[in-house]
Amino acid sequence: MAQRRIGLWLIGACGSVAGATCLGLSAWARGLIPTTGLVTALEAFAPLDLDGPSSFVVGGHEVRQADLLTPVWELHQRSRVFDRAVIEACRSDLEQWSRHLRRGILYRPNAALQALRDRPDVLLARHPQEAITAVQDDLRRFQDQEQLDQLLVVNAASTEPPAAWEVRQLSLTALQEALERKAELPLPASTLYAYAALEGGWPYVNLTPSLGASLPALEELARQRRVPHAGQDLKTGETLLKSVLAPLFARRHLRVLSWVGHNILGNRDGWVLNDPENKASKVKSKDALLSSLLGYKPQSLVSIEYVESLDDWKTAWDHIHFEGFFGTKMTLQFTWQGCDSLLAAPLVLDLVRLVALAQRRGEYGALPYLASFFKSPLATSLHDFAQQFALLEQWAAQQHPNPPAAAASSAAQS
Amino acid sequence: MAQRRIGLWLIGACGSVAGATCLGLSAWARGLIPTTGLVTALEAFAPLDLDGPSSFVVGGHEVRQADLLTPVWELHQRSRVFDRAVIEACRSDLEQWSRHLRRGILYRPNAALQALRDRPDVLLARHPQEAITAVQDDLRRFQDQEQLDQLLVVNAASTEPPAAWEVRQLSLTALQEALERKAELPLPASTLYAYAALEGGWPYVNLTPSLGASLPALEELARQRRVPHAGQDLKTGETLLKSVLAPLFARRHLRVLSWVGHNILGNRDGWVLNDPENKASKVKSKDALLSSLLGYKPQSLVSIEYVESLDDWKTAWDHIHFEGFFGTKMTLQFTWQGCDSLLAAPLVLDLVRLVALAQRRGEYGALPYLASFFKSPLATSLHDFAQQFALLEQWAAQQHPNPPAAAASSAAQS
Amino acid sequence: MAQRRIGLWLIGACGSVAGATCLGLSAWARGLIPTTGLVTALEAFAPLDLDGPSSFVVGGHEVRQADLLTPVWELHQRSRVFDRAVIEACRSDLEQWSRHLRRGILYRPNAALQALRDRPDVLLARHPQEAITAVQDDLRRFQDQEQLDQLLVVNAASTEPPAAWEVRQLSLTALQEALERKAELPLPASTLYAYAALEGGWPYVNLTPSLGASLPALEELARQRRVPHAGQDLKTGETLLKSVLAPLFARRHLRVLSWVGHNILGNRDGWVLNDPENKASKVKSKDALLSSLLGYKPQSLVSIEYVESLDDWKTAWDHIHFEGFFGTKMTLQFTWQGCDSLLAAPLVLDLVRLVALAQRRGEYGALPYLASFFKSPLATSLHDFAQQFALLEQWAAQQHPNPPAAAASSAAQS
Amino acid sequence: MAQRRIGLWLIGACGSVAGATCLGLSAWARGLIPTTGLVTALEAFAPLDLDGPSSFVVGGHEVRQADLLTPVWELHQRSRVFDRAVIEACRSDLEQWSRHLRRGILYRPNAALQALRDRPDVLLARHPQEAITAVQDDLRRFQDQEQLDQLLVVNAASTEPPAAWEVRQLSLTALQEALERKAELPLPASTLYAYAALEGGWPYVNLTPSLGASLPALEELARQRRVPHAGQDLKTGETLLKSVLAPLFARRHLRVLSWVGHNILGNRDGWVLNDPENKASKVKSKDALLSSLLGYKPQSLVSIEYVESLDDWKTAWDHIHFEGFFGTKMTLQFTWQGCDSLLAAPLVLDLVRLVALAQRRGEYGALPYLASFFKSPLATSLHDFAQQFALLEQWAAQQHPNPPAAAASSAAQS
Ligand SMILES: NC(=O)c1ccc[n+]([C@@H]2O[C@H](COP(=O)([O-])OP(=O)(O)OC[C@H]3O[C@@H](n4cnc5c(N)ncnc54)[C@H](O)[C@@H]3O)[C@@H](O)[C@H]2O)c1
Ligand SMILES: NC(=O)c1ccc[n+]([C@@H]2O[C@H](COP(=O)([O-])OP(=O)(O)OC[C@H]3O[C@@H](n4cnc5c(N)ncnc54)[C@H](O)[C@@H]3O)[C@@H](O)[C@H]2O)c1
Ligand SMILES: NC(=O)c1ccc[n+]([C@@H]2O[C@H](COP(=O)([O-])OP(=O)(O)OC[C@H]3O[C@@H](n4cnc5c(N)ncnc54)[C@H](O)[C@@H]3O)[C@@H](O)[C@H]2O)c1
Ligand SMILES: NC(=O)c1ccc[n+]([C@@H]2O[C@H](COP(=O)([O-])OP(=O)(O)OC[C@H]3O[C@@H](n4cnc5c(N)ncnc54)[C@H](O)[C@@H]3O)[C@@H](O)[C@H]2O)c1
Ligand code: NA
Ligand code: NA
Repeated sequence: MAQRRIGLWLIGACGSVAGATCLGLSAWARGLIPTTGLVTALEAFAPLDLDGPSSFVVGGHEVRQADLLTPVWELHQRSRVFDRAVIEACRSDLEQWSRHLRRGILYRPNAALQALRDRPDVLLARHPQEAITAVQDDLRRFQDQEQLDQLLVVNAASTEPPAAWEVRQLSLTALQEALERKAELPLPASTLYAYAALEGGWPYVNLTPSLGASLPALEELARQRRVPHAGQDLKTGETLLKSVLAPLFARRHLRVLSWVGHNILGNRDGWVLNDPENKASKVKSKDALLSSLLGYKPQSLVSIEYVESLDDWKTAWDHIHFEGFFGTKMTLQFTWQGCDSLLAAPLVLDLVRLVALAQRRGEYGALPYLASFFKSPLATSLHDFAQQFALLEQWAAQQHPNPPAAAASSAAQS
Repeated sequence: MAQRRIGLWLIGACGSVAGATCLGLSAWARGLIPTTGLVTALEAFAPLDLDGPSSFVVGGHEVRQADLLTPVWELHQRSRVFDRAVIEACRSDLEQWSRHLRRGILYRPNAALQALRDRPDVLLARHPQEAITAVQDDLRRFQDQEQLDQLLVVNAASTEPPAAWEVRQLSLTALQEALERKAELPLPASTLYAYAALEGGWPYVNLTPSLGASLPALEELARQRRVPHAGQDLKTGETLLKSVLAPLFARRHLRVLSWVGHNILGNRDGWVLNDPENKASKVKSKDALLSSLLGYKPQSLVSIEYVESLDDWKTAWDHIHFEGFFGTKMTLQFTWQGCDSLLAAPLVLDLVRLVALAQRRGEYGALPYLASFFKSPLATSLHDFAQQFALLEQWAAQQHPNPPAAAASSAAQS
Repeated sequence: MAQRRIGLWLIGACGSVAGATCLGLSAWARGLIPTTGLVTALEAFAPLDLDGPSSFVVGGHEVRQADLLTPVWELHQRSRVFDRAVIEACRSDLEQWSRHLRRGILYRPNAALQALRDRPDVLLARHPQEAITAVQDDLRRFQDQEQLDQLLVVNAASTEPPAAWEVRQLSLTALQEALERKAELPLPASTLYAYAALEGGWPYVNLTPSLGASLPALEELARQRRVPHAGQDLKTGETLLKSVLAPLFARRHLRVLSWVGHNILGNRDGWVLNDPENKASKVKSKDALLSSLLGYKPQSLVSIEYVESLDDWKTAWDHIHFEGFFGTKMTLQFTWQGCDSLLAAPLVLDLVRLVALAQRRGEYGALPYLASFFKSPLATSLHDFAQQFALLEQWAAQQHPNPPAAAASSAAQS
Repeated sequence: MAQRRIGLWLIGACGSVAGATCLGLSAWARGLIPTTGLVTALEAFAPLDLDGPSSFVVGGHEVRQADLLTPVWELHQRSRVFDRAVIEACRSDLEQWSRHLRRGILYRPNAALQALRDRPDVLLARHPQEAITAVQDDLRRFQDQEQLDQLLVVNAASTEPPAAWEVRQLSLTALQEALERKAELPLPASTLYAYAALEGGWPYVNLTPSLGASLPALEELARQRRVPHAGQDLKTGETLLKSVLAPLFARRHLRVLSWVGHNILGNRDGWVLNDPENKASKVKSKDALLSSLLGYKPQSLVSIEYVESLDDWKTAWDHIHFEGFFGTKMTLQFTWQGCDSLLAAPLVLDLVRLVALAQRRGEYGALPYLASFFKSPLATSLHDFAQQFALLEQWAAQQHPNPPAAAASSAAQS
């Protein structure tokens, strides 16, 4: 069988995570880097029919004037990552993929998101349907030009403010009716992109805390169209540690009194999160899991601050105050110093490989077994990292000589 | 049914861990403290027929001149733990139990252990059999005096140097034959205590890295006598964190380059561990799990230093250097500040409750499902805390169609 | 010569700092504690004619229902400090001094300060003059009753919001004229207390970032009345470290890129500072010195959060990002875990002893050589702790066989 | 006046510190880097007649096969420092200077030092005089070839084991007599290099804890020959912090109970220090200052461990346990993450500039006002960094009524 051609469409394609993902894809395909950081390169996943790095073609939407190499050089110079020789070797791939970059869409952006945009042709959509149509046109053109077997859409765009409460109440019918009427709706751009993808039959992965496909109406759409999707908000640092440490306290019956997390970072993501509206989405995503993991709500504080000099080196200090036998107070502190985009990028590749396979297996709707990748996992309330990972391993261990029964009957992708 | 009477025999009975355990037992029985820190007080264990705190009567061996209140006041004054009112309320229990204290035994102690001893009547055994007989006499007398339904022996004594390599080669027959001959043998005192217990049909729990029952000959003895035992070296701080953090790196395919752990503590345990011989046992126990959890051996360093001013407040700094995508080096550091004996004490109560039940259920030999309690678990190579804990939960969830009483009388486990 | 009798009048007398100061005074006088933490107990200050602890009599203002023992027991139980035996031994002193407690005054308090007050007789002054008169009456009565040789007023009350900008413009004449007219003025309570003290000829020490005497009109008043005063905001933790570490970076020509400080604490002070208005005063005081010490303004962030479980154990994490040779970025992090009130209390005793001596030496106005005690020192722009301390040592080293010329002519108060 | 030509002769010329120094000299001369990290670039030193970077010509001794670019590329690749463009631009300077590299000498090296050497022509001196003569020949040739106005020798070689106690007892006469006899003497190589320099009239700077010129006989030699020298062991990280933090505790009368420092590093220096003999020199240098700064000896521990993955990024964790008012125990912890060689290199340039000027001013013997640069400063017992720095500033501020030229020719300082 000839190698499949898989399209990877990045929203926020010239951001740091997207840039690192593209360079990683190219460098991996060229054998220039080890697979460190890629979960799907672990032995447990070897038996799966996952796509190799050379199967992928990249395109995407962006609202800034840049190409795929821009964030790569930025990371190299400011955050001192990547060998120059690797960049040089991969340069042609990124240049070629950059030809598939298209102007992003904005819809009712808040100030922080407005300030980012410097690409003159950005579509400031007047109503949701206008955005959706434009996005679908771009995706269809990409699929045709590149003769893709599968096409996946990944949201790597800047974090948006939390969505209005009402949108979670919308039924799919009501939503579709409003779209047809070209009515205005309090939907963030991420949800318009997600709608465009799912309605077009393209899987959607949401790396961010933005709303994306995380509302009942889009879940219904995904099921109707039999498309899988995954999210929400990659779990790469402080929250990842919370999801292994909080279960420890729970199992040892040590009572967490307070959990304080202070995050500082200096990249564009941090710049956007410096806006209190956008920050609100992230803080919620980083804080919510604690009560679920502990079974009670300790005092908790999450702060995120933009500290320019740190660039991509996100640093988090967590102070965990807990009570043991005789009510004795004790303390655990940790400091995490990670290069944020390089923690995220391999997980993006994992997710597109896993979701592409899921689609071929005929699965659809939000995929709960991808929970270990996300701060706010969809379709599950499981936050314990070890348990989340066990889910993934179980899924991977399922034998599939033939497609699973359900999948067999399900409308397979073209 | 009348309440069972269970004997808890502590070796090192006037040590900090033992003292905190006794005070905790009394305070819990009197309803003066919450069950924080007790794993068996979690809901998952509620259905089990575990013994309540008032079922227990305490006795033990000690080589220093002290009673059970000595370590309690020491901890209160130096480490600022326990409310004075709680101590006062429990004082009579500890005084009563102290009447069961007996002179400990030493056999070929090294300098650090020699230096501890100030009780004039300590038995410096000339050969192993002499020690074993003496210990069994003490245990039998305790059981008779207190009309005990069950009696468990817990090693809470100072850490010994690593045992000679040969003793792990001894068959039970060879060992017993040597004992009969009153021959000298390179066995540490902890193993003599363990032999005395298992041979007498009393379960044995080893809280320390000392050899205790962790050699093939004693496992054989335990199986022959159908007695359960558990060990080795309570997992209460830095190593506990290793056993949840190392799996995280493994699952995320992040390569650990080096793991440095620096432990400082100021209690008597720390004082003994300051002797390089005794320290060697502990360092091995704290270091060995990494390779098993990661699947490769990163550079690792464990240091333990006696810092008097810290008293029981063990402080550990760990620096974990790891590699992510593109071979990028990142760092996690943590600082743990725990009151060591108060982390250990509730686990001692957990273990005696679980092992007592196991004995009634007819189980024997080293109990692998107690792995989550120990740095160097017996009868399993599982070091991942989440997986170890799942084992315990599975055991707890097993159905028991017949009442435990029946199980106790039914000799065997299949 | 008979021992002098010195009055120590505490505003916020039932707060943690005040309570710890009183207990310390009594325990020191009774020889129950060493002088650790007292700067004036260092050898360099031995030749000075400083008052011993038994010279002091305490009184004060408070807006809550409490006496001097209330904060002492609170600290003992919640923060695990003080030996019970010491408290018992000093109890009678604190009870006796508590008889000098008087209802505090409030003037236009903000919500946080209003919420604190539960003493029913608090004077909610209608205009500044009413408050000043009431305070002076209390002080005069105290001085008469106790036959005091000197009386000093110390502001240990909760931090107020920053004062209106205009008050720093007021001339003394304009202020006094407004007071006479019983006009309303945007003066915080701390300034009314300070005015009352200075106008009455009583030295004033401001432990807090509240305005107090730190405005030109009050400096003029102090000079006119020839009274010394000192302030502002005790330097006891994170800021103290800043004042020794920032000069290090400056001297080594290492460029500070960013300085992030995250403070968490759980006492009443922290509770009040949780109000954004009150917090603003403290943050300013903790942040301002950096530019002065470095000669440029790096990015800096100071956060203060109320974390109840910490009680008086203020914990600060600071992350200092700096640039060395070749623009290489490096990092220093520190964590400070201090019992806040016990860091402050001995400095209060130092300050009253030093200011009392200054007054006897005939000095007046803001005393610049006390800079090392304060985050926002008055009458000097010196923030380098080593240099500030050198000032103090120089002052202490001055020979005073006879009063200095200036002092001699100044009208001393008996 | 034409620019002076100053020779900088590095012992250990292909080590990391030496390499970074050379690259820095070249890059600074070419205007490619700011002067960050250079103390002598601070304004306070602007009036001094210090030599600019283009005045210097480099040569040196080495025992490994390498040139000046070797450590530069090593640092670039492994520790991710220096911009490649800067290295390229400076390459020709380093190549040119490399032509002045000469085979190093070894005299009774211990195992760690032996293991380093791979240059086949290294002189394994049979007796001290042989080494001294060889070194002086090399220095004289360099001076002649490059027509140098001044020549300074800097010891940047690997740390040696502590020297035998007796050598500190040797008088200069006895030493010289033994040299003449070609007798063997327990002198480390660093002292032979130092002797060669001072006897030849060339100033000597010791960056390391090796003995070098720090013995009475060499001080006598320096005074006899009227040559200045400086040392010992650059103060660049943990010890630097000790020298600003310990005075803080002293001034605040806070009693340090214990000070634990754990250093990890992965460069060649760390590799050599992994040998317990060599490590002993460094630990002593890092530990000794505490008692002097505090006035008493708290428990202190310094550990240094070789952790390969860290390369040049020396990381130190310090835990300071101290006692405040009422004997309350509190804690300060810090973590220092510095690129060791880049912290050292600018100080090397500072020292050669300052010592060259000192020589022209006619100063000789150990220079006490350079104390702030060193862990174990010569000719002073001052360890407080702020006070040490004040010494330097005072020296810099001294008036020089006669031009430096005059001073250079006038032999002595009064
Ligand atoms: N470890 C991680 O890096 C991590 C972890 C979890 C979540 N995330 C999330 O991933 C996202 C990307 O992070 P990043 O560091 O790459 O940020 P970035 O700012 O570098 O990239 C985001 C990009 O999205 C673009 N963009 C914004 N709005 C757009 C729109 N409507 N259409 C098209 N493009 C748009 C921006 O111009 C920018 O180039 C953020 O939301 C971040 O919170 C990152
Ligand atoms: N968190 C923890 O505290 C923890 C965790 C793991 C393991 N441990 C281990 O538990 C043990 C007890 O710790 P601790 O802090 O109570 O120490 P400890 O020194 O306070 O108590 C040990 C006691 O054992 C006694 N002893 C020594 N040899 C004896 C002998 N042969 N017979 C009878 N008594 C003897 C000593 O006199 C002492 O009283 C140590 O081995 C320690 O390493 C403790
Ligand atoms: N290390 C330190 O503790 C430290 C350092 C620097 C500054 N300070 C400052 O010292 C002050 C006291 O700190 P604390 O921990 O004792 O706080 P606290 O809240 O325990 O005590 C303050 C007391 O002031 C009282 N008060 C408030 N307004 C008053 C008024 N108008 N008149 C009379 N009493 C009034 C309150 O009722 C309270 O009892 C705070 O402003 C704090 O910011 C403390
Ligand atoms: N921040 C710092 O880097 C710092 C601070 C204080 C002291 N020091 C000291 O500076 C010295 C150099 O540090 P480094 O990191 O450059 O180490 P390095 O190992 O990279 O360099 C030392 C060099 O000396 C050479 N050498 C050893 N013995 C020699 C001899 N007898 N003759 C000639 N060459 C010899 C070695 O081959 C090596 O190239 C060490 O002693 C170190 O302890 C460094
Ligand atoms: Na212990
Ligand atoms: Na306070």
